[in-house]
Amino acid sequence: MDTNSSSSILVQKLSEAGQSHLLHFWDKLSPDDQISLTRSLELMDFGEINTFFKKAMETSASIKEKMDTRMEAVPRDVLGSVTRDRDSVKDWELEGLSCISQSKVAVLLLAGGQGTRLGSSYPKGMYDVGLPSHKTLFQIQAERIVRLQQLAEQKHNVKCCIPWYIMTSSRTMSSTKEYFAQNKYFGLEKKNVIFFQQGMLPALDYQGKIILESKGKPSMAPDGNGGLYRALGNQGITDDMEQREIQFIHVYCVDNILVKVADPGFIGFCVKKGADCGAKVVEKTNPTEAVGVVCKVDGDYQVVEYSEITLATAEMRSADGRLMFNAANVANHFFSFAFLKDIVQKHEPRLQHHVAQKKIPYMNTEGELIKPDKPNGIKMEKFVFDIFQFAKNFVVYEVLREDEFSPLKNADSQDGKDTPTMARHALMSLHHRWVLNAGGHFIDENGTRVPAIPSLKDGTDLPIKCEISPLVSYGGEGLEELVKGKEFHPTLTIDQDGIHELVKNGV
Amino acid sequence: MDTNSSSSILVQKLSEAGQSHLLHFWDKLSPDDQISLTRSLELMDFGEINTFFKKAMETSASIKEKMDTRMEAVPRDVLGSVTRDRDSVKDWELEGLSCISQSKVAVLLLAGGQGTRLGSSYPKGMYDVGLPSHKTLFQIQAERIVRLQQLAEQKHNVKCCIPWYIMTSSRTMSSTKEYFAQNKYFGLEKKNVIFFQQGMLPALDYQGKIILESKGKPSMAPDGNGGLYRALGNQGITDDMEQREIQFIHVYCVDNILVKVADPGFIGFCVKKGADCGAKVVEKTNPTEAVGVVCKVDGDYQVVEYSEITLATAEMRSADGRLMFNAANVANHFFSFAFLKDIVQKHEPRLQHHVAQKKIPYMNTEGELIKPDKPNGIKMEKFVFDIFQFAKNFVVYEVLREDEFSPLKNADSQDGKDTPTMARHALMSLHHRWVLNAGGHFIDENGTRVPAIPSLKDGTDLPIKCEISPLVSYGGEGLEELVKGKEFHPTLTIDQDGIHELVKNGV
Repeated sequence: MDTNSSSSILVQKLSEAGQSHLLHFWDKLSPDDQISLTRSLELMDFGEINTFFKKAMETSASIKEKMDTRMEAVPRDVLGSVTRDRDSVKDWELEGLSCISQSKVAVLLLAGGQGTRLGSSYPKGMYDVGLPSHKTLFQIQAERIVRLQQLAEQKHNVKCCIPWYIMTSSRTMSSTKEYFAQNKYFGLEKKNVIFFQQGMLPALDYQGKIILESKGKPSMAPDGNGGLYRALGNQGITDDMEQREIQFIHVYCVDNILVKVADPGFIGFCVKKGADCGAKVVEKTNPTEAVGVVCKVDGDYQVVEYSEITLATAEMRSADGRLMFNAANVANHFFSFAFLKDIVQKHEPRLQHHVAQKKIPYMNTEGELIKPDKPNGIKMEKFVFDIFQFAKNFVVYEVLREDEFSPLKNADSQDGKDTPTMARHALMSLHHRWVLNAGGHFIDENGTRVPAIPSLKDGTDLPIKCEISPLVSYGGEGLEELVKGKEFHPTLTIDQDGIHELVKNGV
Repeated sequence: MDTNSSSSILVQKLSEAGQSHLLHFWDKLSPDDQISLTRSLELMDFGEINTFFKKAMETSASIKEKMDTRMEAVPRDVLGSVTRDRDSVKDWELEGLSCISQSKVAVLLLAGGQGTRLGSSYPKGMYDVGLPSHKTLFQIQAERIVRLQQLAEQKHNVKCCIPWYIMTSSRTMSSTKEYFAQNKYFGLEKKNVIFFQQGMLPALDYQGKIILESKGKPSMAPDGNGGLYRALGNQGITDDMEQREIQFIHVYCVDNILVKVADPGFIGFCVKKGADCGAKVVEKTNPTEAVGVVCKVDGDYQVVEYSEITLATAEMRSADGRLMFNAANVANHFFSFAFLKDIVQKHEPRLQHHVAQKKIPYMNTEGELIKPDKPNGIKMEKFVFDIFQFAKNFVVYEVLREDEFSPLKNADSQDGKDTPTMARHALMSLHHRWVLNAGGHFIDENGTRVPAIPSLKDGTDLPIKCEISPLVSYGGEGLEELVKGKEFHPTLTIDQDGIHELVKNGV
């Protein structure tokens, strides 16, 4: 290594932190790679990384096996349910729409992930699941915001705005920004779409040594969706919210094609309950479903991951026969601005990282890239729901899975879950149901009306092909005048230009 | 056609029935084919077929669109639920086991179908879904009966027997019988495994004309699982039951790998309720799931098929938030012998056929085989649940889907439902849970305990590989002494010879 002063400081920093191995291949690097390595190491706070590692390992060791006896189910009085409190849903929606019309509501999108498991290298929000319109997740969500603003404006006869804060990572920032710019922000105003970036952390081996993924490059990963809170502070997002006088924030993950962005019902429920923090959930009905559940642990709310509980706990049932721990987390949260600001300013530094054991490709001392077949190290992550514990008035809002939750995680494959096909089917099934409930009908190639519930022809659940632009309907509203009493051949699409039937083969 | 007297009778019969077209190709048939056609036509009761057709078409036209307003949900007082009545389940099981120990219980298996949609040409019961043991559905079911007899005998210190009546069709009879004989009835006594055969009906075009599938062969299909009742009578099965003093019968379909054959809980519940007829159901939780639901129509119980109801009805909910029509039929029924005998003797002739429109390959008048791409005719079927309407004391028993219902219907394919893979996973997941609940643990290749709920690795829900022979455990009982406090590497199999861990690669 060069012996200029900044380099010698780095050498010393690395030595003190026990990370000197990061320079093992220094002499074999090109000058450019040396500069690049130096830069990436200078950006790292090794003291902090080492502290994170120590704390994360301690926590991860101490919580094992003790969770079950400490868990309590969500009490009925903090729960709002679209199935069990049907009479209240309309009121909640009106309240939410009123808040939106006053421009008090912002949306916060967690979109730092690439679609790695989808086999894509671009941001997940840019994925096209193969709808008739070929809209991406970003476009669908943007158009829902556009439509919801319209609905609030029409109802209250005012102009309003739902700012959209989009958290990217260093891997997705530039392509995300470019995509939105190219598409003119899908009808939103540029100034109301605000991008910011979550941090990165290095992968570590079990001794806390940073792993090299090549001779001159540490293995880095985003710091988890809970990296949100640090990023909100250090990139001035909470300040921006304050200037806009935002009071309520809806946070969600990019991968859910059914997400009701800024859902007025959810927001209205939380506001009416005076909640500082709320979680949207769906009912878990099968004990072994791999979802985290919202519950109390030692009196504080949190999401308990499925891997943390025993089968006996997962199988426990309430007197009504439902699973006791049935509030399945769908990564849709509500925060009051005051709560979020408190988190960012006071509580964020106290959040602990979670440890995920991973198979991390690494450069061995001989300079060979090894792809391990067992976990050989950890990634440290914070989770967005880690801050539930700080809520003073936490509430839970239960919605229907088939209406609101279909995450896109994996590529299409046999036995695959959460695939593009499933996401596409979930959206088309929802829109099919909207048409039926608005009084429309579908007919098959013989002119016969198709039953409401599609049969499982040849073992494949082929839904009626039907897609309704979010610009026409946010949640099924406004369709009666378009479809009532009419019969349609699928593929049916409804957009701002009207109704289209894409009939094949001239039938 | 020959002009001997039996032939001229047939010609006249056909002419009177409007089915003379069946002899259209007579002169082109070989003598052997002529004999074979004559035989098959002589076996047909054309008067009856024509009446069936007329009635079926009338019924099918009249019930459309009117179902929704006539439906009522299953009242709570006739419902027993393993989740909502947990305190009673033990009592029901004891009652059922007591009935079994007195040899009052028989099992009736509906196994007339070939695995056509599975791509197999042999009986579905002979399908191997790829378990570690490679046991077929028949073997699994047989061994459950063996074990259940043992449990009843041990509990009550008597010898007992659960006779097994197996309904085949002309297509599956000989291979089924052969398969059981070759396998020595899987440990059951030959005299207690009784085969009988359901009837066949011809496929008809929309004018009621019997369809020819080749020049000398009418297109025939089994008469539906409701063909059971006619077959029970005309093949002396109810007489056999009477001789054996059978009082309670459990009827089920061959395709459910999780089926609890002669389930003591179900039988005990029905007996304690004094029921003449009962249906086992699982909770339907998604409105658009394609399952029939048990409910009352005009005051009588029946299964309403999903294609018969509107979306609005499917989406209706009770005050507790559950779907109002949520009793999903799983083709598991209970009959008292007195009720079954009444059905066979009195009510069977009054049962109407259901009409299924199908694409039926046919021989046109030019002698070309046409494979239509639209439905061109009908098959007529009775359903096993058609007799619910005659029950005087009907009850419903709700169980957990993940414990008891995983039907095998379709070949493995992307987006496929009810596939061999899903059936295999369902059974292994159940057995995995048995081991955990008996105090056993699974460890991975690193010696780390595997969490109770398997994660979705790489998007594929790969369960712990675990299979427990029904000869060792019928419903999870008796495993503590084998597994408690022990750690196992999957694949774990437990059979009469003990515990086996099939570890790969010498780990």
